[in-house]
Amino acid sequence: MSLSRIKEAVIGSTEIVVVSHEYPDGDSIGSSIALAKALSQMEKSVKVIINGDIPLEYRFLTGIDDIRRPDDVVVNKESIMIFLDCADEKRAGSQIDAYRKRCRLSINIDHHLGNTNFADINHVDISASSTGEIVYDLIKLLDITIDKDIANALYITIVTDTGSFRFDNTTAKTFNMAGYLLTMGLDFSAIRINLWENKNPNSIGLLIDVLSTMKFVCNNKAAYIVATNEVMEKWKAGYGELESFINYPKSIKGIEVAILFKEIGMNEIKVSFRAKADFDVQAIASYFGGGGHKKASGCTLNTQLNEGIKKVIEYLHERLI
Amino acid sequence: MSLSRIKEAVIGSTEIVVVSHEYPDGDSIGSSIALAKALSQMEKSVKVIINGDIPLEYRFLTGIDDIRRPDDVVVNKESIMIFLDCADEKRAGSQIDAYRKRCRLSINIDHHLGNTNFADINHVDISASSTGEIVYDLIKLLDITIDKDIANALYITIVTDTGSFRFDNTTAKTFNMAGYLLTMGLDFSAIRINLWENKNPNSIGLLIDVLSTMKFVCNNKAAYIVATNEVMEKWKAGYGELESFINYPKSIKGIEVAILFKEIGMNEIKVSFRAKADFDVQAIASYFGGGGHKKASGCTLNTQLNEGIKKVIEYLHERLI
Repeated sequence: MSLSRIKEAVIGSTEIVVVSHEYPDGDSIGSSIALAKALSQMEKSVKVIINGDIPLEYRFLTGIDDIRRPDDVVVNKESIMIFLDCADEKRAGSQIDAYRKRCRLSINIDHHLGNTNFADINHVDISASSTGEIVYDLIKLLDITIDKDIANALYITIVTDTGSFRFDNTTAKTFNMAGYLLTMGLDFSAIRINLWENKNPNSIGLLIDVLSTMKFVCNNKAAYIVATNEVMEKWKAGYGELESFINYPKSIKGIEVAILFKEIGMNEIKVSFRAKADFDVQAIASYFGGGGHKKASGCTLNTQLNEGIKKVIEYLHERLI
Repeated sequence: MSLSRIKEAVIGSTEIVVVSHEYPDGDSIGSSIALAKALSQMEKSVKVIINGDIPLEYRFLTGIDDIRRPDDVVVNKESIMIFLDCADEKRAGSQIDAYRKRCRLSINIDHHLGNTNFADINHVDISASSTGEIVYDLIKLLDITIDKDIANALYITIVTDTGSFRFDNTTAKTFNMAGYLLTMGLDFSAIRINLWENKNPNSIGLLIDVLSTMKFVCNNKAAYIVATNEVMEKWKAGYGELESFINYPKSIKGIEVAILFKEIGMNEIKVSFRAKADFDVQAIASYFGGGGHKKASGCTLNTQLNEGIKKVIEYLHERLI
């Protein structure tokens, strides 16, 4: 069992670097903070690296200020590195991949389908709702007491990756973990307010504008929405604010695939896919060089917005119809 | 403990009538079906009465077709009646209150603050997330096996009354119950699809139109949205489709009270209130003859829409500022 190998590796180390992916989300941030807090209780020297801005809604977490950029951390030959929520060695950024080659031992803890098992020890469990759910197991295996800060961070991982317990990756274990965290001092109101009730008034205008772009395609089996640069600037919005919008086309009866196109630059768009039932959107994202899960995936295209939409919808049409 | 008194009463009865409130929601429907299914396993003669249309999203539940209107059921002197999720004797409809006066024994199982303890046996637990959570306890106390149908119905009660585990009424017990139901054969995908992914395409247009009415009042401590008859007709929408819309004004930073005004007729509006933190919106609804919980309440006003908005906002302003 690789989790016990990870336990041994952790016990035998003094310098531990926890890293997670670029464009951080609730799972990457929460699992990194929770693991770092837990390892600190074991009196390890722990550093956390995430290359990217921390979205506003997660900044209330204790430990968030300890997250550093790659440039601010030295990884030496004594260090072990624990990669969280990274499907491959590039997900944390190229600089961190260089660190990996230098460190004593690398560990890969993840729940993504298609993880490349890039590390020395790999623990990939695609039945876990989130990487946080695996980190929870590791923390328990290490016999560390889950305090309020760890509980908050771990809760963030499951509540964001399961869409607040709505997606099919939710299991009895996920619920039992949530119940346990609540008994360990989880600040439920703080999470509710920061995650869902602390929005900019502009978020409503942004939602209205993006939903107004909704189009039905592929014989009404798919629907997409578009967030243009213009709309993002109009509402002074960050791309993180779009995260839940893809659930709206997905909410429509008969829609099997929902898509969100985000214009990043003149020749760069990010595409998110969600599947409702059995259709595999990981395969669609893969075709365009991306990845993810069977029911939730994404890719980046270096094309102009309308051209990108056309390409993706044409390919989806072939596969879906 | 009143739950064991209820157990004794149930065991000593052969004819049981389960009733819940008008304008039924997930908690009233789910707890009624779950309890009826469970009592049927005990070979009781069970009837379920709910006066009102069952919203589309709950019609997939097994047992939904057994729900009857008051006119279709005879309640005699041998019957015991179990009221679920009714804060007072009028909540199930006046006809059912007449039945109550005639029956052998009435039982009141509820979680609403301010329940009037109107029955012969009253079990009111305001710490329960939902009436379904109490029915779950009763079913376990009765030693009945929770099958897939009961699990689905009970899950509906907690997931709707907690806003999918987001509201503060969510407890460790709620999560543990959800986890348990999942192990008892709960059809998680069916619930996800029916509750959140089976919407009319018009629902997006309805959302856009209603959100476009949003106004900030009471020094930006409150925000309200309005669903006019005209908009409801434009999108051929039922009032049940508005249920989650109040979460949008509530999602804004700094908003303490969110309000939804629904125009029902020329001189009838329904008003829903939600509080984010400590402000008591039950008191506001009470002032206008309504009720509910501290953080979620509602009332009906027999006035024209704009006049009703003015009255409510003026009173709220006095209390909130």
